[in-house]
Amino acid sequence: MKGVFYADSLKFLLEEDKELFEVIKELNEKVYTGKVLDYKTLKIIAIAIAAAKGDEKALKKQIVSGMKELNITKDEVIDALRVVLLTTGMPNFMKGMRVLKEVLEGKE
Amino acid sequence: MKGVFYADSLKFLLEEDKELFEVIKELNEKVYTGKVLDYKTLKIIAIAIAAAKGDEKALKKQIVSGMKELNITKDEVIDALRVVLLTTGMPNFMKGMRVLKEVLEGKE
Amino acid sequence: MKGVFYADSLKFLLEEDKELFEVIKELNEKVYTGKVLDYKTLKIIAIAIAAAKGDEKALKKQIVSGMKELNITKDEVIDALRVVLLTTGMPNFMKGMRVLKEVLEGKE
Amino acid sequence: MKGVFYADSLKFLLEEDKELFEVIKELNEKVYTGKVLDYKTLKIIAIAIAAAKGDEKALKKQIVSGMKELNITKDEVIDALRVVLLTTGMPNFMKGMRVLKEVLEGKE
Amino acid sequence: MKGVFYADSLKFLLEEDKELFEVIKELNEKVYTGKVLDYKTLKIIAIAIAAAKGDEKALKKQIVSGMKELNITKDEVIDALRVVLLTTGMPNFMKGMRVLKEVLEGKE
Amino acid sequence: MKGVFYADSLKFLLEEDKELFEVIKELNEKVYTGKVLDYKTLKIIAIAIAAAKGDEKALKKQIVSGMKELNITKDEVIDALRVVLLTTGMPNFMKGMRVLKEVLEGKE
Repeated sequence: MKGVFYADSLKFLLEEDKELFEVIKELNEKVYTGKVLDYKTLKIIAIAIAAAKGDEKALKKQIVSGMKELNITKDEVIDALRVVLLTTGMPNFMKGMRVLKEVLEGKE
Repeated sequence: MKGVFYADSLKFLLEEDKELFEVIKELNEKVYTGKVLDYKTLKIIAIAIAAAKGDEKALKKQIVSGMKELNITKDEVIDALRVVLLTTGMPNFMKGMRVLKEVLEGKE
Repeated sequence: MKGVFYADSLKFLLEEDKELFEVIKELNEKVYTGKVLDYKTLKIIAIAIAAAKGDEKALKKQIVSGMKELNITKDEVIDALRVVLLTTGMPNFMKGMRVLKEVLEGKE
Repeated sequence: MKGVFYADSLKFLLEEDKELFEVIKELNEKVYTGKVLDYKTLKIIAIAIAAAKGDEKALKKQIVSGMKELNITKDEVIDALRVVLLTTGMPNFMKGMRVLKEVLEGKE
Repeated sequence: MKGVFYADSLKFLLEEDKELFEVIKELNEKVYTGKVLDYKTLKIIAIAIAAAKGDEKALKKQIVSGMKELNITKDEVIDALRVVLLTTGMPNFMKGMRVLKEVLEGKE
Repeated sequence: MKGVFYADSLKFLLEEDKELFEVIKELNEKVYTGKVLDYKTLKIIAIAIAAAKGDEKALKKQIVSGMKELNITKDEVIDALRVVLLTTGMPNFMKGMRVLKEVLEGKE
């Protein structure tokens, strides 16, 4: 599945509700296949939204999968986080920078 | 100033607090001058964040200024709104589509 | 479509993106067909979530459609809003009560 | 006290501010005694709101106490989470499914 | 009742649920009677929270009642809004400035 | 820097984007130097906003730095949290009380 892979929860969902799993898979596929924007840009948008909501876990997953699957770079993430700073404030921005730093350090 | 022009409120801010106005202007300039992402992509991110917050007025301003200044297209906005749908749900998405429709109709 | 009918926006979506429209319709259908909870209870949950988010327009649509389609009563809405009061505070609760009052008055 | 028992924090509140503790207890009692909806339905609404806010700790407490006190079932929680998916997006839904899974596993 | 007077909704609440009205009144009274902070500071905090949530109507009510009842000044509101800017971003801040301007103009 | 010191993240920001670091420092300085409200009151407002957003980590930092730098007392924090209770509900309030308790215990 394109996008973030919530491994355990998705397996649980698949067991509990196969039909809903299929609908979500389809929606996910559709969303990450833009008419005009490429997958990488859509993923950067998803990173920005996770940061704007202050959702640390979702943000980490999005950054990790964006860097691994799509070669999103540190500077692209920072550019996106700067929009988060302007539109949602400093705590979300600092949280985003901290998560990015953790992801980068985990990679080395 | 790059980004959204909150005409009246900015004038009020300028009168009340010239120094803060200058800092905000600088921050705004900095944020919308990406290291790697272009201004248009940053603006699409700002549109997505406004929609993800369900902030109708901010969203309208962002879409209007994005379309006028940067030739962001209807399909680019819809692609961004689809990420909003997946990550923040249907009411925000439908609100975004309605605002987009209003902006498009206001243009004709 | 079960659930709220966002007339204009849905028509716009159908024109712009028929495939996404179909996925959303399917998701909507699936969500409002509970395994164990009945449609009315699911709808009351949707009313509570709209109120908890402070989303006035979505709340109005949910209450109107819930009362018309499913005979949800004033007291059922108030019971749900009281949970909203406890879990998300007084402004959301008072907003919910005002919206409910407007819907009730519009009906008579 | 009906509803969630925030053991430590409530004890602290009781020590610090007995009067406020009493008001909160009364409000809590009142909210979870519906005019028309039963306690179980009110509790499911509270679960849905906690999930819709993405508040993982509150959600866990609500699910645990709902399952223990009121015999709320796995399928009832999933039905509520599906409304959360539609109205607030996939990250909140996947978080809810993960928390539910953890609670279920903790029980065995 | 101390705090914001949501005239119509409170009347509706009183008719529908006198007991809950009494509990809310008591809670309201308690909250706005600080142990150490004075009523005016508590009110400024309430203004800041309404702005931080981007809740325009609640913010307007809080500013109007704070200025009328407690002689909160324009500069006190702006100082609070600047904390809102730093912690929750520019759209909330600009919205707060616009609401403040409207309240000031409505007074003259 | 006045306000909260996000040690690691700030160092990372300084390395990655010195110019943005300078703008943020200036904004921070400006925000925490009120025209009329004193630094301590501004800090209490920041504590209340962090609690109102349910942002546990930001709240902890704000309380710790507020108590250390500005001698904000336990009762001042509780007074602020009571406004949070009224305006954003019980889970945020209980979370705030728990965080306060943890900070107090860590100090002894």
